[in-house]
Amino acid sequence: MEFSAQQIAEFLNGEVKGDVNVKVSNISKIEEGKPGTISFLANPKYEKFIYETKSSIVLVNKSFKPTKNIDSTLVLVDDAYDAFATLLSIYDEFIRNKEEISNLCFVEKSADVSGAKYLGAFSYIGHNVVLGKNVRVYPQVYIGDNAKIGDNTIIYPGAKIYHSSEIGNNCVLHSGTVIGADGFGFVPQENGEFKKVPQVGNVIIEDNVEIGSNTTIDRATFGSTIIKNGAKIDNLIQIAHNVEVGERTVVAAQSGISGSTKVGKNSMLAGQVGLAGHLTIGDNVKIAAQSGIAQNIKDGEIVQGSPAYSVRDYQRAYIYFKRLPDTEKRVSDLENELKELKELLKSK
Amino acid sequence: MEFSAQQIAEFLNGEVKGDVNVKVSNISKIEEGKPGTISFLANPKYEKFIYETKSSIVLVNKSFKPTKNIDSTLVLVDDAYDAFATLLSIYDEFIRNKEEISNLCFVEKSADVSGAKYLGAFSYIGHNVVLGKNVRVYPQVYIGDNAKIGDNTIIYPGAKIYHSSEIGNNCVLHSGTVIGADGFGFVPQENGEFKKVPQVGNVIIEDNVEIGSNTTIDRATFGSTIIKNGAKIDNLIQIAHNVEVGERTVVAAQSGISGSTKVGKNSMLAGQVGLAGHLTIGDNVKIAAQSGIAQNIKDGEIVQGSPAYSVRDYQRAYIYFKRLPDTEKRVSDLENELKELKELLKSK
Amino acid sequence: MEFSAQQIAEFLNGEVKGDVNVKVSNISKIEEGKPGTISFLANPKYEKFIYETKSSIVLVNKSFKPTKNIDSTLVLVDDAYDAFATLLSIYDEFIRNKEEISNLCFVEKSADVSGAKYLGAFSYIGHNVVLGKNVRVYPQVYIGDNAKIGDNTIIYPGAKIYHSSEIGNNCVLHSGTVIGADGFGFVPQENGEFKKVPQVGNVIIEDNVEIGSNTTIDRATFGSTIIKNGAKIDNLIQIAHNVEVGERTVVAAQSGISGSTKVGKNSMLAGQVGLAGHLTIGDNVKIAAQSGIAQNIKDGEIVQGSPAYSVRDYQRAYIYFKRLPDTEKRVSDLENELKELKELLKSK
Repeated sequence: MEFSAQQIAEFLNGEVKGDVNVKVSNISKIEEGKPGTISFLANPKYEKFIYETKSSIVLVNKSFKPTKNIDSTLVLVDDAYDAFATLLSIYDEFIRNKEEISNLCFVEKSADVSGAKYLGAFSYIGHNVVLGKNVRVYPQVYIGDNAKIGDNTIIYPGAKIYHSSEIGNNCVLHSGTVIGADGFGFVPQENGEFKKVPQVGNVIIEDNVEIGSNTTIDRATFGSTIIKNGAKIDNLIQIAHNVEVGERTVVAAQSGISGSTKVGKNSMLAGQVGLAGHLTIGDNVKIAAQSGIAQNIKDGEIVQGSPAYSVRDYQRAYIYFKRLPDTEKRVSDLENELKELKELLKSK
Repeated sequence: MEFSAQQIAEFLNGEVKGDVNVKVSNISKIEEGKPGTISFLANPKYEKFIYETKSSIVLVNKSFKPTKNIDSTLVLVDDAYDAFATLLSIYDEFIRNKEEISNLCFVEKSADVSGAKYLGAFSYIGHNVVLGKNVRVYPQVYIGDNAKIGDNTIIYPGAKIYHSSEIGNNCVLHSGTVIGADGFGFVPQENGEFKKVPQVGNVIIEDNVEIGSNTTIDRATFGSTIIKNGAKIDNLIQIAHNVEVGERTVVAAQSGISGSTKVGKNSMLAGQVGLAGHLTIGDNVKIAAQSGIAQNIKDGEIVQGSPAYSVRDYQRAYIYFKRLPDTEKRVSDLENELKELKELLKSK
Repeated sequence: MEFSAQQIAEFLNGEVKGDVNVKVSNISKIEEGKPGTISFLANPKYEKFIYETKSSIVLVNKSFKPTKNIDSTLVLVDDAYDAFATLLSIYDEFIRNKEEISNLCFVEKSADVSGAKYLGAFSYIGHNVVLGKNVRVYPQVYIGDNAKIGDNTIIYPGAKIYHSSEIGNNCVLHSGTVIGADGFGFVPQENGEFKKVPQVGNVIIEDNVEIGSNTTIDRATFGSTIIKNGAKIDNLIQIAHNVEVGERTVVAAQSGISGSTKVGKNSMLAGQVGLAGHLTIGDNVKIAAQSGIAQNIKDGEIVQGSPAYSVRDYQRAYIYFKRLPDTEKRVSDLENELKELKELLKSK
């Protein structure tokens, strides 16, 4: 892909100052600019670089007034940062755009893949599966029987979706993610062995959800494990059976949510957080990294610790924890002084 | 699948009260019952729902005496909960029952897959592999050279089993699980670089073991990493080289066990627990979530903390940790009071 | 594979004492020796086993002087431990040596796989991919468009490498590892929804890096996420966008490094460690297991805790943490004694 300054300006509704025919095929930071690339200048702190950069094109705000000579061709736009972000999205979409139905993808006869835009090699599409419009399925994906995938959803290489899972529109599932494996349920028997509890529910992922790599979301024992609209789930996360994650809640890498816990909307779990089972976590909750949650949390609370409580109180207590060797010494000193004082008084 | 009340009653050794021909094809909770589904009533607290439910069939105890009119057909059994669990198992088995040898599964000539019930597309079966009777291998599974898989074992899509691994009978391995990758062993050289220690052992998984999604169990440096009979291992767990996990021990999600540590039988590791290497953990041990184990643990102990010790002592200490800001203030007050007292005495 | 004592002695530049024609096909510990296997004796503590072992061949130091009769054939070498390690490496390489270009591997026309030694079934090699010399790609691997793989690198079954990733020479990537999935970047919008930040950078893995199973290394938002020469990364590790891991740094299982954090060289992260984003961690740093890092760390520091600080100070504070119930009682006793003393003085 190669674009001229003229083409970029037209696309971004901007204005060229310099060579309208200069072409770029890649992007770079302004301070690391190379010929054939496009950069942007938005933050005035970086202004000095625009006079030195080797980038062929630089996006700048219309309001920018150069104080020295500039070698690069400029494209003047209302908001250079925003325009650059738009270019990045287009560039990224272009790079990833796959339109091909591989004849090495195995599709069961009863599946409806008519709307799919991309079906990669060595993927397996099970019985009665329905793929929405513009769905892209990369190679080596597994979609089990009776699963449904909504419009515009992208499933990256090697994601595994067990039978009867339901994935919404505009979702992204990254490589190695496993949706709908059995919940971890075993009933101890009299002889000490465990009997497996059948896991006959499913997983429902609503619209606009992104799920990172190698995350695991187990199917419900009965009913559904649900990830609600707009939630963002990072890598290597464990979501157990019958969990619910609320709208637009964000879960950072390596966190785990135990069975039947419900997390509200607009909440944020930092990395490596663990939640016990059967809890109710409110809306707009924030949980600090590595915290362990053993109790319900009300709307708007911010917590830390293992077990976690108010973040402010935790952080204060931790300051005194660090001082403990000193505090202990002060207590010993007090004991000695008091003892001396008593002996002194006794001797009088 | 559709079953009549008559068929279900015969199967469960129960008795129909209502329309023997009414058919169901799915299951539902009694409070969310729909036509064409079967529910159950076991807990008397839920009795009111049986008079309102739209479920076509409800399983009830023979001892149940309705106090109002019921629209659903009833199937009377000795224990409605138990009968329902049995139905769930059958339903689940039916849904998942796969009997097909895909010609898109690649099997090396020296492998013996004659007993397999299901070999999915795009799976690879290596040289000299032996699959037991009724083994089900879903799509995209890798089974390396010389591996052995016991009877009735199920391997879900995309699980990877390295060469020479041995999996027992009646095991379940979920998607993305990796069995037998190299243990993490490197010897520092004089020049600061690391030299890989060859990992020539294997992994042995005994009978009746279930392993969740995206769990990793490394092969032994020498000898075997062993998961013993009836152990249950959840998702995203790390089991390092030369570890042993005892009979019927349960490990919850995201826990990790470092190299050469031996865990006894009937023990329970909660989620996100970490065990250091070369430890001996006894039988019937319980480890609280997020604990870090740095020392051996005796039979029957229950521990918490990082590093962990007696759960009761940890929880008591944590109460005082939360009070530390107050305790510190009390120590300061004592210091001030004692100082004042001394000055008072001196002045006398 | 079967080797005679003569062949082994020639290979190791050693000397046979016993039957030069005796053959072995496997290895064993000297205390568990069986006919047809080779063992070694290096540690004098194990000397007694050499008189009892059933191993057909035992490697021993030339300096070893037996005090009783030995049934096994001996191969005398300068350093038995070292010679055995060499044999293990050869044995391991022999077992794993794969030389086959499967016609079930799908290679896009523009890819250059001419140097590959092994291309397994059901792997996918994207457009413009370049594989170096002697590269081994096991089955079910995905290598996205424009990715480059250096000489002698081994990619185990099911590893997924997104487009434009660059992997160096002599690397090992284990099963289920995901390289180059999108960094976790979302910008909150005014309506509370999140907009995805395009992730247009890549991942660069330099030479001599080993990466364990089911680890995830995200591509940079812009620029590169970099794993430097000789770093060793264990299983189930999360490495976020724009992170850098220094030369020969070792990261143990289940640790996570948040976005844009730079870790220096020759450092060691123990298991289940978490690092916040945008930090600078020095060279030769050691971080204890389960620690949480919220601040920069200088060269050579050793830290523990969550949040972490000096390991010595943390461990001392933790001792006093365990004593907190006792300390609290001492403070209460002091309060009571002081109160009594004051009342006593007042009454005088």
